[in-house]
Amino acid sequence: MSLSSPTDNPYSEMQIADVTAYMADLGHRARRAARALARSETAAKNRALLAIATDIEHSRDAIATANHHDLEAGAAKGLDAALLDRLELTPPRIDAMVAGLREIAALPDPIGAITELDFRPSGIQVGRMRVPLGVVGIIYESRPNVTADAAGLCLKSGNACVLRGGSEAFASNQAIAASIHRGLAEAGLPIDGVQVLATTDRAAVGSMIRMPEAIDVIIPRGGKGLIERISREARVPVIKHLDGVCHVYIDEGADLDKAHAVALNAKTQRYGTCNTMETLLVAEAAAGQILPRLAAAFSDRGVELRGCPRTREIVAEALPATEADWEAEYLAPILAVRVVAGLDEAIDHIARYGSGHTDAIVTSDYARARRFLREVDSSSVMVNASTRFADGFEYGLGAEIGISTDKFHARGPVGLEGLTSQKFVVLGDGHIRG
Amino acid sequence: MSLSSPTDNPYSEMQIADVTAYMADLGHRARRAARALARSETAAKNRALLAIATDIEHSRDAIATANHHDLEAGAAKGLDAALLDRLELTPPRIDAMVAGLREIAALPDPIGAITELDFRPSGIQVGRMRVPLGVVGIIYESRPNVTADAAGLCLKSGNACVLRGGSEAFASNQAIAASIHRGLAEAGLPIDGVQVLATTDRAAVGSMIRMPEAIDVIIPRGGKGLIERISREARVPVIKHLDGVCHVYIDEGADLDKAHAVALNAKTQRYGTCNTMETLLVAEAAAGQILPRLAAAFSDRGVELRGCPRTREIVAEALPATEADWEAEYLAPILAVRVVAGLDEAIDHIARYGSGHTDAIVTSDYARARRFLREVDSSSVMVNASTRFADGFEYGLGAEIGISTDKFHARGPVGLEGLTSQKFVVLGDGHIRG
Repeated sequence: MSLSSPTDNPYSEMQIADVTAYMADLGHRARRAARALARSETAAKNRALLAIATDIEHSRDAIATANHHDLEAGAAKGLDAALLDRLELTPPRIDAMVAGLREIAALPDPIGAITELDFRPSGIQVGRMRVPLGVVGIIYESRPNVTADAAGLCLKSGNACVLRGGSEAFASNQAIAASIHRGLAEAGLPIDGVQVLATTDRAAVGSMIRMPEAIDVIIPRGGKGLIERISREARVPVIKHLDGVCHVYIDEGADLDKAHAVALNAKTQRYGTCNTMETLLVAEAAAGQILPRLAAAFSDRGVELRGCPRTREIVAEALPATEADWEAEYLAPILAVRVVAGLDEAIDHIARYGSGHTDAIVTSDYARARRFLREVDSSSVMVNASTRFADGFEYGLGAEIGISTDKFHARGPVGLEGLTSQKFVVLGDGHIRG
Repeated sequence: MSLSSPTDNPYSEMQIADVTAYMADLGHRARRAARALARSETAAKNRALLAIATDIEHSRDAIATANHHDLEAGAAKGLDAALLDRLELTPPRIDAMVAGLREIAALPDPIGAITELDFRPSGIQVGRMRVPLGVVGIIYESRPNVTADAAGLCLKSGNACVLRGGSEAFASNQAIAASIHRGLAEAGLPIDGVQVLATTDRAAVGSMIRMPEAIDVIIPRGGKGLIERISREARVPVIKHLDGVCHVYIDEGADLDKAHAVALNAKTQRYGTCNTMETLLVAEAAAGQILPRLAAAFSDRGVELRGCPRTREIVAEALPATEADWEAEYLAPILAVRVVAGLDEAIDHIARYGSGHTDAIVTSDYARARRFLREVDSSSVMVNASTRFADGFEYGLGAEIGISTDKFHARGPVGLEGLTSQKFVVLGDGHIRG
């Protein structure tokens, strides 16, 4: 008997006649649970996080069985190897989910913190208290570990969440949801606080992004097409992450060894991540010295270079870059290279072609470092550091639920704080306005 | 010859054949200017603010003439007295515009400030730098002073702005825009940084809220209908201010004099403002003592009371409140009154009927004050202070561009900081990711 036979699937999909009604009910329950989670004590939230982690550990077999079902069904549907790889919950990946939840439990609780409580001339004291956003909707694709990570971050930040994972990971997500619900119950928190959709019906996504009465923000995680469609159609705010067209600019007079190391790391440490360098800009005065050595190192690693005419005068093997190369997010061992006159041209290039994600300068010059930091309008701007550092863990946020390429609300890696807001608190002693 | 004859209007409307093309060009110019404003030095922005203030002072006659034209045209169109009053630029109102700009010049510049620059285990330093949002679109109604106030706040926070005032204030707004442009030019800043629409065509508003390539956020200021329509149709984030259904809850054991003073001030200091109390909640144990004296004071001031059955047992002259009264933003001398069992019922009432604007408790009890602050989910939550304090000036924000009843991005009174975002800055010395 094959594992993919219906009777072996412990998480077969619910038959839902009216998806709109199902989503309205689910949203209503999430909203109600959000109120309870918002006022939950730190200890209760941590207890739940640890209970969920332990339950996942103890449920390894059930989770693996569900995942195996997804993998077999995916293979039968002809999903490609990369997608099946993302879908797979290997034992180390289950360990990572468990460890991630314990790390979230160990993070400071942002909720309730009051900052800047100052006296005003009227005699009142005014400050701000950090509060949850309410209900967070997350739409993601094949990786089932997101179910645990996202639920953990939302729970710690006092938010309820509605999770819609990829249909190919349905059984895996349901198995993880079962652990989450047992952990919440064990800690005395409402299980409605984490809603994992029990349907893969696409109409549910349409409902989810258009119910401001139930969901306060949508975080889509996936390809650009998915994110653009959701942003266009959503009736609630969206924290979105579009392209990462990241630049490293090597300035005139930069330390050549540092420039070499940073550029090489930014491109080759990993090719498929959004904070990987896609275009290298080199000041004219530094190009002759830096480019031959860098080109050789990239060549050793199999990176294809596509250069402007001046780059190609120095690096003969570089292919000619077209306008499209300056806008490309390759996510592959390909690098666009452009020689620029200096800082101004580099900043102009980044403003025109960049995606506002992460851009770095390598320089020894104080004034140009200062200008680059101020004038480049990206979510992360770096001096003498690899763009690969743009990451919630590297920044000390503890964990990240995504990276925002927007400016509104959250920008760059989004950790617990990005899932919160601040309300004003006013303390008086019978004060009235005159 | 009447002042309203076309030849006397110094600011007759441009004839624009293609509104979409006009808006696209205006947006493009705003976007370009935004880049220059983002990197402008504090001194240049302050010089411009002071130059605009001085120019408005010197242009009093021209502004008054334009305003007179608007008033005559408005009267001829049959606008009501309240609207004509809001439209009028009296000499004190012109003084207030001038003073407002000088106050904004005196505020600290939020842009470029770096906070929390910490070393990470990898050796990089990570912090956040405050940056402008980019281009702010503001859609407002009859008050022409908003043109100067909004332009001033956007300028100080390094943002370009696109301003669309009420069609009835067209000439007044154009006259103020002329002063703004002269002031910007005098300070060497791009006049494209403040765009005041030269058309009253409603199609321009439709364009304005759907051009994410040019405008980063829309702030509508006006009636609920306008704000709801814009929120529904906008393709960019909206900072919106819907209802102010504000509550004061008088707790068991509250100091009666303070409770009396706060409740009276919250309702009667001004009737038409969003932070005016609309519903009074009184703990059962305090109702017998507090309500008769308060009812008499409200009666003296001509405030109509609409009470729950238990309120009416104590205050015979109160009319019966219906369900609609608990949701009403009267903006008038009418007050809904409800006797509740205690704190829990008060918090539940506020969660169910409130608008998340401003809510206050009057109490002597430490634990209940703490719970109210934590559990009431409103943009301002107060202890022993009048709801009328919910205001950017009272909170020390210096000035406000509006009050947000959203949680996303900005909540409560929005000052300069609400018009900014933060990017990550990373400082290294050749650091690479391992």
